[in-house]
Amino acid sequence: MSDPVPTTGPRVVTVPPGEDRERLVCPDCGYIAYDNPKIVVGSIALSGDRILLCRRAIPPRIGYWTLPAGFMELGETSQDGAAREAWEEAGARLAIGPLLAVYNIPRISQVQLIYLAHLTSPEIAPGPESQEVALFAWDDIPWTDLAFPSVDWALREYETRRELIQAGRPFAPATNPVDGL
Amino acid sequence: MSDPVPTTGPRVVTVPPGEDRERLVCPDCGYIAYDNPKIVVGSIALSGDRILLCRRAIPPRIGYWTLPAGFMELGETSQDGAAREAWEEAGARLAIGPLLAVYNIPRISQVQLIYLAHLTSPEIAPGPESQEVALFAWDDIPWTDLAFPSVDWALREYETRRELIQAGRPFAPATNPVDGL
Ligand SMILES: [Zn+2]
Ligand SMILES: [Zn+2]
Repeated sequence: MSDPVPTTGPRVVTVPPGEDRERLVCPDCGYIAYDNPKIVVGSIALSGDRILLCRRAIPPRIGYWTLPAGFMELGETSQDGAAREAWEEAGARLAIGPLLAVYNIPRISQVQLIYLAHLTSPEIAPGPESQEVALFAWDDIPWTDLAFPSVDWALREYETRRELIQAGRPFAPATNPVDGL
Repeated sequence: MSDPVPTTGPRVVTVPPGEDRERLVCPDCGYIAYDNPKIVVGSIALSGDRILLCRRAIPPRIGYWTLPAGFMELGETSQDGAAREAWEEAGARLAIGPLLAVYNIPRISQVQLIYLAHLTSPEIAPGPESQEVALFAWDDIPWTDLAFPSVDWALREYETRRELIQAGRPFAPATNPVDGL
C-alpha cells in the first residue's frame, strides 16, 4: 500500500530550522515541500431525477462507477472545479448548487467537497478518464460496483435530503458517517 | 505583492510529459511540484455569547484581529484542524459544531472552512502567533481592526444565522458574498 521511496526531489523527512514539525526536504537542492491536504471537488449531478455516474478508465478502481470528481486546481473556486471535473470526465455542463457533503479522509489527507448540481443540457460523453458515463435512476444505481465508499455515502445523503432539496429548503452538508472515518 | 523568483527547488514553469497543464519543476533534480489549493480551517468560537478573536503577532496584518484559523495539516480532519488552530493561537479548547462558511479565494488558491464552535473552558491565552486574545461581545467587535475580509464575512454570517443556530435548526454554510470574489 505504500509508495516506493523516491530517488529525486524532496525525500528526507526532517524538521526545518525554525519550524515545529517534520517536512519532506530535498537533500540535493534544499527545497522544502510543504505538502498539505488535497481538496477533491465533485458533484451529485442530476438530469431530472437521474444521477450522473462515470465508469473509471484509470486507476485506482478501473471499471468501477464514481461521481464526477477530482483534485481542485490552482486559481479556481471549488464550484468551478466541480463543474470542470464533470466536463472533463463526462462532457457534462453543470449548474452547481448547494454543498451536499464535506468528507474528511485523513488517512490520505483529503477533503472532499461534494456539491449538488444540475445538468444544463442532457448531453454527456466519456472523457479520457472514463470508460463510460450514464444517467442512473435511483433504482438502477450499480451499488455493488461503486468505486469508493464516499460515492456510496454521497448518494445516500442525497436521497436522505431529497425532499428538503426539492422543497428548496436549507440543509447542512453531510459529514463522514460515523463508521466511515 | 509577488514573491521573488526562488533560486533553488521547483522554479521552472513547464508542462511535464503526459500532462495537460503547467507545473513548477526543479531544473536541478527534476522534481515536479504538484502545487494545489490550500485549505484554511478556522472557527467562530463562542463562550456564551462572546466570540474569540486573536490579535495577530505575525505577518500579514500584524496587530489586527482575526478568527483562530490556519492551514490544515496532513493527517488531520478539518474539524481537528480548526480545534488545533484555536489551541495553538489562543490556548482555547473547542467543541466543533456545524460548518458555518466555505469561502473560496481563487486569487491565492485558498479554500476556507469556518466552523461554528464552543469553548469547553473559558480559559484562553495567546500562543506564539497572537499578541493578545479576547472574547468579544457582538457590540464590542473591533470591526475597523479586522485582519481580513473573510473574518468580517464570517462574523456577519454568524449573526445572520444566530436564531437558527440557537434553535438547533439546520442551515446551509455561507459562501463568498457576491462582492467578495
Ligand atoms: Zn532537489
Ligand atoms: Zn531540485
